[in-house]
Amino acid sequence: MTIRALVWGENVHEQTNADVRSLYPDGMHTLIAQALGKDSAIEASTATLQDPEHGLSVEVLEKTDVLLWWGHAAHGDVSDAIVDRVQQRVWEGMGLLVLHSAHFSKIFKRLMGTPCSLTWREAGEKERVWVINRSHPIAAGLDPWFELPQSEMYGEPFAVPEPMETVFTSWFQGGEVFRSGLTWQRGAGRIFYFGPGHETYPIYHDRNVQQVLRNAVSWAANAAPDWKGIEQAPNRPISEALEPIEQRGLSLHQNGDEGFK
Amino acid sequence: MTIRALVWGENVHEQTNADVRSLYPDGMHTLIAQALGKDSAIEASTATLQDPEHGLSVEVLEKTDVLLWWGHAAHGDVSDAIVDRVQQRVWEGMGLLVLHSAHFSKIFKRLMGTPCSLTWREAGEKERVWVINRSHPIAAGLDPWFELPQSEMYGEPFAVPEPMETVFTSWFQGGEVFRSGLTWQRGAGRIFYFGPGHETYPIYHDRNVQQVLRNAVSWAANAAPDWKGIEQAPNRPISEALEPIEQRGLSLHQNGDEGFK
Amino acid sequence: MTIRALVWGENVHEQTNADVRSLYPDGMHTLIAQALGKDSAIEASTATLQDPEHGLSVEVLEKTDVLLWWGHAAHGDVSDAIVDRVQQRVWEGMGLLVLHSAHFSKIFKRLMGTPCSLTWREAGEKERVWVINRSHPIAAGLDPWFELPQSEMYGEPFAVPEPMETVFTSWFQGGEVFRSGLTWQRGAGRIFYFGPGHETYPIYHDRNVQQVLRNAVSWAANAAPDWKGIEQAPNRPISEALEPIEQRGLSLHQNGDEGFK
Amino acid sequence: MTIRALVWGENVHEQTNADVRSLYPDGMHTLIAQALGKDSAIEASTATLQDPEHGLSVEVLEKTDVLLWWGHAAHGDVSDAIVDRVQQRVWEGMGLLVLHSAHFSKIFKRLMGTPCSLTWREAGEKERVWVINRSHPIAAGLDPWFELPQSEMYGEPFAVPEPMETVFTSWFQGGEVFRSGLTWQRGAGRIFYFGPGHETYPIYHDRNVQQVLRNAVSWAANAAPDWKGIEQAPNRPISEALEPIEQRGLSLHQNGDEGFK
Repeated sequence: MTIRALVWGENVHEQTNADVRSLYPDGMHTLIAQALGKDSAIEASTATLQDPEHGLSVEVLEKTDVLLWWGHAAHGDVSDAIVDRVQQRVWEGMGLLVLHSAHFSKIFKRLMGTPCSLTWREAGEKERVWVINRSHPIAAGLDPWFELPQSEMYGEPFAVPEPMETVFTSWFQGGEVFRSGLTWQRGAGRIFYFGPGHETYPIYHDRNVQQVLRNAVSWAANAAPDWKGIEQAPNRPISEALEPIEQRGLSLHQNGDEGFK
Repeated sequence: MTIRALVWGENVHEQTNADVRSLYPDGMHTLIAQALGKDSAIEASTATLQDPEHGLSVEVLEKTDVLLWWGHAAHGDVSDAIVDRVQQRVWEGMGLLVLHSAHFSKIFKRLMGTPCSLTWREAGEKERVWVINRSHPIAAGLDPWFELPQSEMYGEPFAVPEPMETVFTSWFQGGEVFRSGLTWQRGAGRIFYFGPGHETYPIYHDRNVQQVLRNAVSWAANAAPDWKGIEQAPNRPISEALEPIEQRGLSLHQNGDEGFK
Repeated sequence: MTIRALVWGENVHEQTNADVRSLYPDGMHTLIAQALGKDSAIEASTATLQDPEHGLSVEVLEKTDVLLWWGHAAHGDVSDAIVDRVQQRVWEGMGLLVLHSAHFSKIFKRLMGTPCSLTWREAGEKERVWVINRSHPIAAGLDPWFELPQSEMYGEPFAVPEPMETVFTSWFQGGEVFRSGLTWQRGAGRIFYFGPGHETYPIYHDRNVQQVLRNAVSWAANAAPDWKGIEQAPNRPISEALEPIEQRGLSLHQNGDEGFK
Repeated sequence: MTIRALVWGENVHEQTNADVRSLYPDGMHTLIAQALGKDSAIEASTATLQDPEHGLSVEVLEKTDVLLWWGHAAHGDVSDAIVDRVQQRVWEGMGLLVLHSAHFSKIFKRLMGTPCSLTWREAGEKERVWVINRSHPIAAGLDPWFELPQSEMYGEPFAVPEPMETVFTSWFQGGEVFRSGLTWQRGAGRIFYFGPGHETYPIYHDRNVQQVLRNAVSWAANAAPDWKGIEQAPNRPISEALEPIEQRGLSLHQNGDEGFK
């Protein structure tokens, strides 16, 4: 089965910062999509903040198995209505990879229900990513650790819910640690947060980082049919009860009512 | 230490439905607060939708250790700004008990990041609440199960994140099951969802239900100082790094910048 | 990739009880293996308590991706040395499906670290299995619930660790509930416990049960290379430290020592 | 309520190694018990490997609310029968703190069901313990991090089950990370593993380490009555079913049988 991945890039610093543009002349989203495409089972496309509907129309999202999200300077410019739409698709089963500074994206904060805050330092220091859950699909093909010679420090406490799995934890040269690879499920959708990815360093050119992203796309793709209507609270009328019961006591609702929301 | 509990009631059906009023002449919130007050370590007060700021002013919330939330018909009438405020307080460490139909409250959906949907039937059928985690503080003093002779059926799938702990699971006469007592942590705040509580039955008059609520208030009260500023992402400047490092590579930020949000 | 599944059957009641034999003339293990084989991606074989080394030689286990375990009357007859061997293989990445009365098997108790006790009643009552995690791979192709007209009641509390995921919860006619489909990871191995399976009813002839087992085999198969040596605690000598450090302070060990066990 | 803590020390290196004895002239267990006793709510006593029944008689364990376990060189000398006894008490509700090299103790491996392996280096390097779950009771009174100037490196992967909560994660000077404070529940018992504690450094003299141990004892103490019989699987006879049912189908057992084990 081909996995349809969509790489969403904020695409701001690539336009406004010459250093970032020199690292990612076609945008970070484009390079990431190319990296995913090295796995023949992944069909990757891109979308950006500047596209109509941020490139996330109903039609596009319907055809997306896994969405990758990179944002940093313009989280507030993402339309709430489109965040609603993305959240609904995650609930229905679309996978989501949240990259680096997207820890503060609207969609991630929405799905976590927590501040998603952390500490940070942009010093170009060394980050060593340790594999905690060695046989996890997201760690496939990796050594016990890998290094990024220059990285932005992201440090604990990372204000997210306890994860389903801790896949990676990072060591930083300046003395901090960070749970840099975490998984959760929300509705039917699987979510992976990955820490590395600062735009002034060539992180997404890194072989190991690219491997992690490909692995995570495969992991997050849910083969189940979309769970349409997951947000509904259907009434099961008495007449259709699985065991014979009769109405007793007082009631607010007429049989078959839709209920309050 | 006295725990300051605040029982928030939507207080709509008590006004508009004679049956509900006859069960709860002073409102469900008042009866629940009285039930909590039977534990001398709990000091319980109330607030309702109709109060100014829904009774949830900054000052009131600052002095609240555990908030209980019951809503059903008017979730949409709760101000988003006040939901923001409550969510912030949960992150800082305030406990939250989410009762029955408040599964669809704005605050619960915000903290879970999921639809929080379920199936339901108002037939006055029997609910038997089984204790799954017998020695959990929330189950203190309970038998292995207890029954509610008339209850609204809430059934699976309950679209919430995997809980930290499953404390209760309910059996329904009509054939369904429901995870009726679940815990989570979000930020520093502990959250407990409890299923029973339909307003046309005398659920909150039940001895076991009252015991559960008192237990859960004690469990959710966090002795730690409030985590003010949990939503901030502080920069750790290079000059204050715990290990000696020097600026390397390119950078977006000046040292000490606030960062993007 | 073909998944090599091995169905281990205690194979006692099939020999000693005419009722069980009439349901499973070739043994429960054989029928289960046949059910797995309906998925062309699964290659299923069998082993029994009575085989030399219980059919679980080092060679056989090395070639097993997922082991299914059914036992009831003869848990105590399983050799501790072979339980050690199976546990080691689970740690290395072999999947394990624990079926029904195998909740009290040595291997399950070893991997859980808990009593794995429950309550039970053999009344031939109805069991309705509810899908809790609808889009989970183990629930693929199932309706929101399925029924077993005659089943042995297994009831809560089920003394196992909080699971990674609750996939199924069962409703019983006699009034109990049971978390009948649970997942865990131990070492690199994925474990699934499935409740239904009493030998005096034709449970493993059931279409839905067979579907669950096939799904679970696929889910439990770990594509990662076996994690050989997972039980070792390797010394990382100072000379190979990733950051330059020097010996300081007192020491118990000579550099390169094996450490205590 | 006074919490009765029992500090179990292997007490080998204090006898055989002059360096260790100079740090802990009365044994590590004694110093730890003294540190616990600074909290007036904790009543701490000690037991050692060399005592009759390792100091863990039935009577002593019955009166223990929280057991602390430190072992290193002599894990194999601990009697299996006594490990059985301790495990049973944890299931019944006794708290357990597992200290440093006790990651390889029989009791911890039993309760985890995993190898509990890790990597290590005895170089006297700096360990910085980061608080991950800042408002957790075990972190009460701590700064965002604390340092141990000399520590034994324990590194990932740490082969334990996903924890209920990650409270601490350590940064090591030599480049590794380690989840140094983890919680689980097994049966009714709460378990906390704490990484620091190598015997050739004065770790248990450290103010922060002592604070962690006192906090953890309070956290692990379970106010619920002991869950006696948790290992039993009681039959619920048809005559006592909560809902009216009749025997149907075939059966292995006579009503009221004890069941297989």
